[in-house]
Amino acid sequence: MLNIFDCKNCFPEIEKLPPVDIERESMRRIDAELERRGIDVPSCNLPVVKRCIHTSADFDYAENLFFSDGAVEAGCHILKNKSPVIITDTNMALAGINKKSCGKFGIEAVCFMADEDVSEASHRTGFTRAVCSVDKAASLFADSGRPVFFVCGNAPTALVRIRQLYDENIFRPDFVVGVPVGFVNVVAAKELIIKSGIPCIVSRGNKGGSNIAACIVNALLYL
Amino acid sequence: MLNIFDCKNCFPEIEKLPPVDIERESMRRIDAELERRGIDVPSCNLPVVKRCIHTSADFDYAENLFFSDGAVEAGCHILKNKSPVIITDTNMALAGINKKSCGKFGIEAVCFMADEDVSEASHRTGFTRAVCSVDKAASLFADSGRPVFFVCGNAPTALVRIRQLYDENIFRPDFVVGVPVGFVNVVAAKELIIKSGIPCIVSRGNKGGSNIAACIVNALLYL
Repeated sequence: MLNIFDCKNCFPEIEKLPPVDIERESMRRIDAELERRGIDVPSCNLPVVKRCIHTSADFDYAENLFFSDGAVEAGCHILKNKSPVIITDTNMALAGINKKSCGKFGIEAVCFMADEDVSEASHRTGFTRAVCSVDKAASLFADSGRPVFFVCGNAPTALVRIRQLYDENIFRPDFVVGVPVGFVNVVAAKELIIKSGIPCIVSRGNKGGSNIAACIVNALLYL
Repeated sequence: MLNIFDCKNCFPEIEKLPPVDIERESMRRIDAELERRGIDVPSCNLPVVKRCIHTSADFDYAENLFFSDGAVEAGCHILKNKSPVIITDTNMALAGINKKSCGKFGIEAVCFMADEDVSEASHRTGFTRAVCSVDKAASLFADSGRPVFFVCGNAPTALVRIRQLYDENIFRPDFVVGVPVGFVNVVAAKELIIKSGIPCIVSRGNKGGSNIAACIVNALLYL
């Protein structure tokens, strides 16, 4: 049973905004800061950029996101009209994707990283679990006719594998959100996706993460 | 059944490191960059700081983390010796906390944000769900004798509520990881925790997030 406690000290330094207004006010402050910094983001990309900043408070996302031609429109179209499967490279990114919106659009969202067969294949082959989980996605969906929307916020090797399978025509995902974070192979793996021709949104450089991955998907779902 | 595909193109720009070496090499590069920037972090806090940078590639975490006196030692002690309940303010932070390590130390990890009674109380009272979820934690654990380890990566109102209940002696968590991200009340709410006297690790300023929240817990678990 949930008690609601009566607290008297309301702290004058805390702004009294109704919950529903907090996000709107946050977005207004992000707009103001972008203007103060003189950063001009193309309007089609702005909702994605602002959500990344909202999720991280890091204004680098105003300048490091790469969008393939028409990426926002293409990503939205796949998510909202084609009932894709979203495949993430972490359970954290999976947890961050809005499941109510997914349900509304007939989207299935999955993560194979903790699967027994992926772990076993990784031990057997010496590939990372991320590589084996891309291979699992390929074996399940490459010939299924179901659109695949790949979301990578952690493992650059997943992006390298996606590019390999794409080049060899084994597996061609319809869209990639490529925002792994880190210090080994992250920058190069993202460039491989940018140059692949796959419709994508990618954070150039070292930054990214499961939170950024999930929020880009949500930004597209909310458009 | 998981196929493993044979791919020929290995991309010379990708470093060939065994999976097990990638994290060690990443940490080495973080050390090198901290040195290049002339940033000196107290050695007791370094594992937490480095894991936050590893998770975000954002070197601001080398300078914005506040540690209460002996916070790392205190946090470790609670997690490893007192079988606390970890309460998070997002399912994403919950997903990011290493469950194998939790199991090893008899830690239960929960998130009340999506609970029916929390949602209902939020609608009834006009408080945020985060506030109602802190109140739920208080009604469950304040008199339970079980140590409480609060992990906040999203909702500043959760921190405000923790401070209110603490001041009124209704609910006194043993440790707070206070790293919400955002643009409304985030900075002030964190200062309320810093000044409360509760043992804590807090990211000063606007930055933080569920990923940072989870990785701070993991850094303490891995020590």
